[in-house]
Amino acid sequence: MKSEQLKVLPWSLEITGMDVGQYPFYESILSQGNGYLGVRGFDPAGARENSFDRSVFLAGFFEYIKPGITDMVNAPDLFSLRFGMPCQEISASATLDLRTGLLTRKAVWQMESGERFSLLSRRIVSMHNKHASALEVEIKPLNGDLRIILETGLDGDVTNLPISDDQLTEDTQCKRLLTPVICQANQVGGTLVMESTPSKRRVYQAYRVMTNLPMATTGIVADSYTAVRIEGIIPQGDALVVTKTIATYCYRDQIQDHLAEAIQLADLLAGLGFTGVLKESTQAWGELWESCDIELDGDPELQGAVRYNIFQLLQNNAGTDPYVSIGARGLMHGRYKGNYFWDTEIFMLPFFLYTRPEAAKNLLLYRYHMLTSAREGAKSLGLKGARYPWMSSNTGYEQCETWDTGCCEVHITADVAHAVQEYVRITDDQDFLVHYGTEMLVETARYWVSRLTYNEEADCYNLLFVKGPDEYCGVTTNNTYTNYLVRENLLSAVRAVKFVRQRAEDWAVLQARLKVTAQELEEFEEVADKIIILYDQERGLLLQDELFERMEPLDISAHKLGATALYRTIPYDRLQRYKVIKQADLVLLMTLYPDRFSTKIKQNIWSYYEPLTLHDSSLSFGTHAQLAADLGYEDVAWDYFQKSVFLDLYNIMENTHHEGIHMAALGASWQALVLGMAGLRQGKDGRPLVNPKLPRSIRGLRFSVVMGGSEYDITINQSETKIESLRF
Amino acid sequence: MKSEQLKVLPWSLEITGMDVGQYPFYESILSQGNGYLGVRGFDPAGARENSFDRSVFLAGFFEYIKPGITDMVNAPDLFSLRFGMPCQEISASATLDLRTGLLTRKAVWQMESGERFSLLSRRIVSMHNKHASALEVEIKPLNGDLRIILETGLDGDVTNLPISDDQLTEDTQCKRLLTPVICQANQVGGTLVMESTPSKRRVYQAYRVMTNLPMATTGIVADSYTAVRIEGIIPQGDALVVTKTIATYCYRDQIQDHLAEAIQLADLLAGLGFTGVLKESTQAWGELWESCDIELDGDPELQGAVRYNIFQLLQNNAGTDPYVSIGARGLMHGRYKGNYFWDTEIFMLPFFLYTRPEAAKNLLLYRYHMLTSAREGAKSLGLKGARYPWMSSNTGYEQCETWDTGCCEVHITADVAHAVQEYVRITDDQDFLVHYGTEMLVETARYWVSRLTYNEEADCYNLLFVKGPDEYCGVTTNNTYTNYLVRENLLSAVRAVKFVRQRAEDWAVLQARLKVTAQELEEFEEVADKIIILYDQERGLLLQDELFERMEPLDISAHKLGATALYRTIPYDRLQRYKVIKQADLVLLMTLYPDRFSTKIKQNIWSYYEPLTLHDSSLSFGTHAQLAADLGYEDVAWDYFQKSVFLDLYNIMENTHHEGIHMAALGASWQALVLGMAGLRQGKDGRPLVNPKLPRSIRGLRFSVVMGGSEYDITINQSETKIESLRF
Repeated sequence: MKSEQLKVLPWSLEITGMDVGQYPFYESILSQGNGYLGVRGFDPAGARENSFDRSVFLAGFFEYIKPGITDMVNAPDLFSLRFGMPCQEISASATLDLRTGLLTRKAVWQMESGERFSLLSRRIVSMHNKHASALEVEIKPLNGDLRIILETGLDGDVTNLPISDDQLTEDTQCKRLLTPVICQANQVGGTLVMESTPSKRRVYQAYRVMTNLPMATTGIVADSYTAVRIEGIIPQGDALVVTKTIATYCYRDQIQDHLAEAIQLADLLAGLGFTGVLKESTQAWGELWESCDIELDGDPELQGAVRYNIFQLLQNNAGTDPYVSIGARGLMHGRYKGNYFWDTEIFMLPFFLYTRPEAAKNLLLYRYHMLTSAREGAKSLGLKGARYPWMSSNTGYEQCETWDTGCCEVHITADVAHAVQEYVRITDDQDFLVHYGTEMLVETARYWVSRLTYNEEADCYNLLFVKGPDEYCGVTTNNTYTNYLVRENLLSAVRAVKFVRQRAEDWAVLQARLKVTAQELEEFEEVADKIIILYDQERGLLLQDELFERMEPLDISAHKLGATALYRTIPYDRLQRYKVIKQADLVLLMTLYPDRFSTKIKQNIWSYYEPLTLHDSSLSFGTHAQLAADLGYEDVAWDYFQKSVFLDLYNIMENTHHEGIHMAALGASWQALVLGMAGLRQGKDGRPLVNPKLPRSIRGLRFSVVMGGSEYDITINQSETKIESLRF
Repeated sequence: MKSEQLKVLPWSLEITGMDVGQYPFYESILSQGNGYLGVRGFDPAGARENSFDRSVFLAGFFEYIKPGITDMVNAPDLFSLRFGMPCQEISASATLDLRTGLLTRKAVWQMESGERFSLLSRRIVSMHNKHASALEVEIKPLNGDLRIILETGLDGDVTNLPISDDQLTEDTQCKRLLTPVICQANQVGGTLVMESTPSKRRVYQAYRVMTNLPMATTGIVADSYTAVRIEGIIPQGDALVVTKTIATYCYRDQIQDHLAEAIQLADLLAGLGFTGVLKESTQAWGELWESCDIELDGDPELQGAVRYNIFQLLQNNAGTDPYVSIGARGLMHGRYKGNYFWDTEIFMLPFFLYTRPEAAKNLLLYRYHMLTSAREGAKSLGLKGARYPWMSSNTGYEQCETWDTGCCEVHITADVAHAVQEYVRITDDQDFLVHYGTEMLVETARYWVSRLTYNEEADCYNLLFVKGPDEYCGVTTNNTYTNYLVRENLLSAVRAVKFVRQRAEDWAVLQARLKVTAQELEEFEEVADKIIILYDQERGLLLQDELFERMEPLDISAHKLGATALYRTIPYDRLQRYKVIKQADLVLLMTLYPDRFSTKIKQNIWSYYEPLTLHDSSLSFGTHAQLAADLGYEDVAWDYFQKSVFLDLYNIMENTHHEGIHMAALGASWQALVLGMAGLRQGKDGRPLVNPKLPRSIRGLRFSVVMGGSEYDITINQSETKIESLRF
């Protein structure tokens, strides 16, 4: 449901007359980040009920919370602002500028003694320098001179609230993962070094505080809290402006002296001032928007929502870091313990692949770097090759603790392999294929050969005990989505080896590591040939799996009320026997291979499975929009697209407030628009083609894509379609 | 492997030259109990490394260790004996008398100062009065006068070590569940009242200590330890005899003043002396043996083992208590948190049914009393009727925390219904059927109707997402064992209702509660008619389930090495795709309905499934012996029978030392002998029939059974078979 207070404008979100009951929702959608650092959009001066609710996360910073299981560490609150006198907010509004990443918050506060003042806070997590952040606060007395006590610094008194895999259990046990090592403050700033237990991983922070008016300032330190206390009188008609610049480093940064760097950077940023930091960040954002923006001739609110989707994808992506991926809730929420799922490869990665291929490559390199763990993962289950975990953190070992999911949702491995194939196909990055991709494809293919079960009688390979994308189906056999991707995985491994073999030197290096035999390649091909793909000839219908047809029909309209996922009202054990689908399963397969299946087959899949789909996952709407657009079902595509592109802004899943931003939906929305409605494909010449099927409400689109290393500007409007190469 | 130190005699176990490394094994097999109290056979004066290793349990005394999950509470050590001077055991032997339940332990101890003494301890957990226990210790100086300091009393400083469902995880976190409320001692005895957290359940104990020689005695108290300290000199040639009588009550006993009763009983027992307590218990054992003994003309060791099986079944059964069942490891070990499984109904109950039908009835009444929980259990999964939990404690709510087992091993509900049918069939206890059984059958039938999934296309009912007795098969469809028992469950519900209807008054009472409709009965019959029973006509073979035939063959001889269960060497996820069987599945079905299937079908099942069975559960050997005997496979029946009947005595599973006694195997052995080898059946006239197929090594058998309320003496020898009614 759309919030009445929220306005989505072409380049910003505006929230006026903020409603205290909706603060968690605002905090989610106003999140800021730069791929290194993620900060929920909380009010710096706001109440702090729980030490985990003002989340700040650092990409890839995980810590063990029990043997083998990690949580994304909640880092110190770097925008911390505390009043030293009793006062409370009486009204507030906020603006998030998508062009610059600037979050502005205007509020009126009242003191117990009756004085009121306005509080304008502006903050930035720099897109220019991932270690830089800045906060500027302007306080204006509204009814007479104002005696003020204000503290601002770093608050390391934060805990984690690890959430169990079982989405129905609300975990209530906080864990403090960081303890202070250094916590200092003086009149102009301070430093904070905290260390996680048990791995002794550190976060290093320094900050500088400046005021425009002469005020008394003191350094304050308590446990893991460091701040500068500012005291004085602001005369009526005047305004106090406090600027804080913050530098953040952590153990993952390959530098010598993290703390010295942090202190130096905080000073440097102080020199630039808030405006300087903002300017640099705005410039960096400008470059991003140049390659990533989609200009839309249509509803300005939709334009803003499309940009918001892109904005959050960019904010949560580390871009140049090949050792992290993007969590299901990005860097903005601890849900799912910050883990990386197939959400990245299948839903988010295409956006980066077509707009920022280097970022896409780094997302895949994360998986490459986890190959050792994936090999051990396979081995630990008595299998060969490499098996990617359903939930992955910095360790690359399975983080999913529920057996039926962690052990059975095996498609993740084929999803990673699919992303490798897509990356190479669109970028033609042969070096990646040679140095990384082939190894990933061969190792995952080996896994599949050992994971499949040969049936001699029928001379076929079955995939037993699996769960496909439709998680409402229990442990089943031969999920077609999975088997299809497995087949592609096997065949692409063969193709990759054949390709690299042509480069003798590279092949020698790779082969020394891989030791692929001719027999193995034959086996890959044979297994691909004999893997079961369930297809009902008579109905011209791909079947979801072996059990789905035997499920009990459910009157969905009587049970699915509002957005509430059915697993919240029907016990999972019961749900798994109903003929309903949690989220796009075969519909998703159709969007992954849009030109592989006949229109008739796609139509049959749509008309059979779509009515049975509950969309109880945020991964579902965008995919449905994409296939509907592909099939020319304009109205329904439009409807699904709206649900996907406004998913968080309208709190469609009714959980954005306490779960944060749904990253996969952002990517799925982008795919629906660009791959679905604009019909973007790669032509045989490696250049883009479009086949636009825009809904009535979108009169035109303009965006850029990169294919084979070249950038293209694409303009679609009602009269023409133009693809312009930006290269000479 | 048979222990060299252990001799199994017709009426006793004798262990000579006890080996310290084998103490945990001795402690398991020397366990004593009376169905109310279970005590591992530890040395009273022995070392006490962990506070949970001297286990003492009270039937039905469970406490929560986390929300919804209970553990069987480790109660105070009532045989506690401590020397107050440095000394150690240098040799020991023990005898467990099966006729009387007396455990005797003879040891030689040596003091640091060189003096040696013999320590003879005798102890009894009274079968006459379930609250009574006694210990007698005789100390004789061996080389000169002996200055002795000895404490004996109650040691409540005990903890639990809850073991996770996952048998591969060794839990190491102890939990203290009891805290002292009263802990007193004086010169002649003391009292101890302890209370469990969080349910505030109490155990009340009193003890009296007597010595034959004049010694200095003091009461000693520390936290939850109470003892009488005995000090003095035992002259060479003389012997100090210390007698301790102990009375134990708990919150479950419906009496006014538990502690007063305990004190009174401890005094009364002291009056009887050790000999008096032993005499009463021996008498009670005598009565039990009269109805339960199997006299065997053959190997005396086998005779002893058969008696040992019966002895442990009797010791672990509460007999007259309709609110407890028998845990998988009885009252003798905390494994599986003391929970009750299908082990009771399918493996143990037949022994009681044929020998002590009142005890069998009480085991079923436990399930009757859990009906409310079972109804809630069904409801919590969105189902109707009553669903019994895979693991059940005093609460009757599911105690199994692993989803694939707790949710999928649904056959337990049909197993309970099967036991109800068997009980009524053998006893002809119509009152039970009217007042309890019908309700259980109807409510479980209702559960099945809601749990099955109707397939319109094929007009049949499928049981989706289940695990059968073969737990090595993953989550599967239409496990035939389960479906068959479900069908019987449905049909028996209809028969039961039709039977009770004939008794108008009873029917009115029952129907007011049950509200069975004619339509419902029709539905039971229809579902029974249309439930899938997988049968391969061509091969004349019942199929285990829908997936088993498609599993990958495994060279068992290369993988199954010794007794180690395969799940310890092959990851479970891998194991589930091999064509191997953990334990009797369809073979078990053949023994539950020995006269329902043709010999040909039984033979086919044997020849197909037996070679694929790993017997990685102690529930497997006895069942195999039984079917082999039924089929006249004498040698193989003998071989399996040996493995079952000596399972704990020879530590066949190699875990008796750290898991305790395998209760189900005891019952399965009894069934193999009586229902298999002796071929006991109930004739159409309700009287016993036998069709002996004794192996060469058993020349004759003599035992009693009860059918339809009448007792029969059955004698089988090489020349004749005699069935004598003991009624006039």
